[in-house]
Amino acid sequence: MFELISIGNELLSGKTLNTNLYWLCQRITSLGGIVTRAVTVRDDIDEISLAFRESLKRKPRWIISTGGLGPTYDDMTLAGLAKALKRKMVVSSKALDMIKEKYEQYVRMGVMDRFDLTPERIKMATLPKGAKPLRNDVGTAPGVLLKVSSTYIACLPGVPQEMKSIFDKELEKFIRDSIRGVRRAETCIRTLGILESSLSPIIDQVRSRFPRVYIKSHPQSFESGRSEIEIHLIATSYSKEESEKEVKNATYMLTSLLRESGAIIKDSG
Amino acid sequence: MFELISIGNELLSGKTLNTNLYWLCQRITSLGGIVTRAVTVRDDIDEISLAFRESLKRKPRWIISTGGLGPTYDDMTLAGLAKALKRKMVVSSKALDMIKEKYEQYVRMGVMDRFDLTPERIKMATLPKGAKPLRNDVGTAPGVLLKVSSTYIACLPGVPQEMKSIFDKELEKFIRDSIRGVRRAETCIRTLGILESSLSPIIDQVRSRFPRVYIKSHPQSFESGRSEIEIHLIATSYSKEESEKEVKNATYMLTSLLRESGAIIKDSG
Repeated sequence: MFELISIGNELLSGKTLNTNLYWLCQRITSLGGIVTRAVTVRDDIDEISLAFRESLKRKPRWIISTGGLGPTYDDMTLAGLAKALKRKMVVSSKALDMIKEKYEQYVRMGVMDRFDLTPERIKMATLPKGAKPLRNDVGTAPGVLLKVSSTYIACLPGVPQEMKSIFDKELEKFIRDSIRGVRRAETCIRTLGILESSLSPIIDQVRSRFPRVYIKSHPQSFESGRSEIEIHLIATSYSKEESEKEVKNATYMLTSLLRESGAIIKDSG
Repeated sequence: MFELISIGNELLSGKTLNTNLYWLCQRITSLGGIVTRAVTVRDDIDEISLAFRESLKRKPRWIISTGGLGPTYDDMTLAGLAKALKRKMVVSSKALDMIKEKYEQYVRMGVMDRFDLTPERIKMATLPKGAKPLRNDVGTAPGVLLKVSSTYIACLPGVPQEMKSIFDKELEKFIRDSIRGVRRAETCIRTLGILESSLSPIIDQVRSRFPRVYIKSHPQSFESGRSEIEIHLIATSYSKEESEKEVKNATYMLTSLLRESGAIIKDSG
């Protein structure tokens, strides 16, 4: 079980489409994890703290947050997390080394003439007690990882390239080892000429025979005056073969029933 | 204050990017509303019920949900809402009329030969006690509106065209009348040659002079080896002129300080 927390006013004001959430859901699903809940909150220490606290109560295996790790006043994810955990914020020497290294690199690149360890830069190395920094190869602020009883908490930056880089290089292997990943098999059927309310009892028939297959119908536009529906069949189990077999058999039953009812199978697979 | 609840496994499995949320945030912001929180939950009656309950506790002016209004087994938004409110589910004759009308139209269009009022179709007209249906011109399932003490709750379908149609035709005017909309003014500056950690103390200076202006920096890629940052300035007040003046003055101070520090203003406005 994974819970995701997205932090940033821009995600709630309509400025930014939350593609980070979409990307993380795809990656976690492909690793065999299940995302059970996602919440978006503003850059507000109390709201951030509440989101972490509410999530911790449900004891997911992972909580992953994005956003709010930078040097500015409204980057307050780590302070919010520390508040939720009632932990002190302390400067991590390992994080400070990562940040120094980064600015030295900027000086070499000519991005800046020289750098001082200003309060804003030290802020990015100030983590909740017990947390360890995760290397950020793309930007400045390190990610953060800590464990609270059986829950891992990872805080990633909001800049998509930085978030993805830390996830891929620092988190992915760790996540894989921390969960007993389920193996997922899925397929998609498109039908024409049947309405969702007529499809519903057919789906119920298939479900009663294949209770472990999750079947979801997504009505599409009325193409050429006919109802078009996309039907998604998903099986998850600890064996790839098992999942594939379940989906295959459920799909066979579903397409047979659909043809009997007069619907057209547009494509499947 | 608005809270949004997105319902659907497909939003958490990485199948679907939540553009409904993005669209609603944009529309609500443009109407002068402020979205304070958004949560995405699975098609699970307990999770849906919990999301409504947690949200109601915070007493927002509006809670708007999307998804889970259709005829299939996993469409359980209204049952989840009824559970949260401890209300019975009752068939709404007004909703039933809307649904009948829709199917009669489908028969006339030749989409179906004839229709029966099956349990799946009656399900779409079964609402928490006290709720009223909202006309859906695009699809079948009506939207739902109800009021719980000072909070309005609207449930909209997940299919984007249906959600948008109900919002525009049935909700927008109602929302406008229900809130004292704030007037928002904003501008965006792009700077080159300054790092976010060096920008941060400059932003703090502007903020201490213009505390009502919200300033957010978004680091971009290092274009041509130089740091590029987008800075967003937003003022909200009950007067348009007031908001515009605040943003204008804060922007003037910010660009002056940026030029002094040697940064280049790429464009602004």
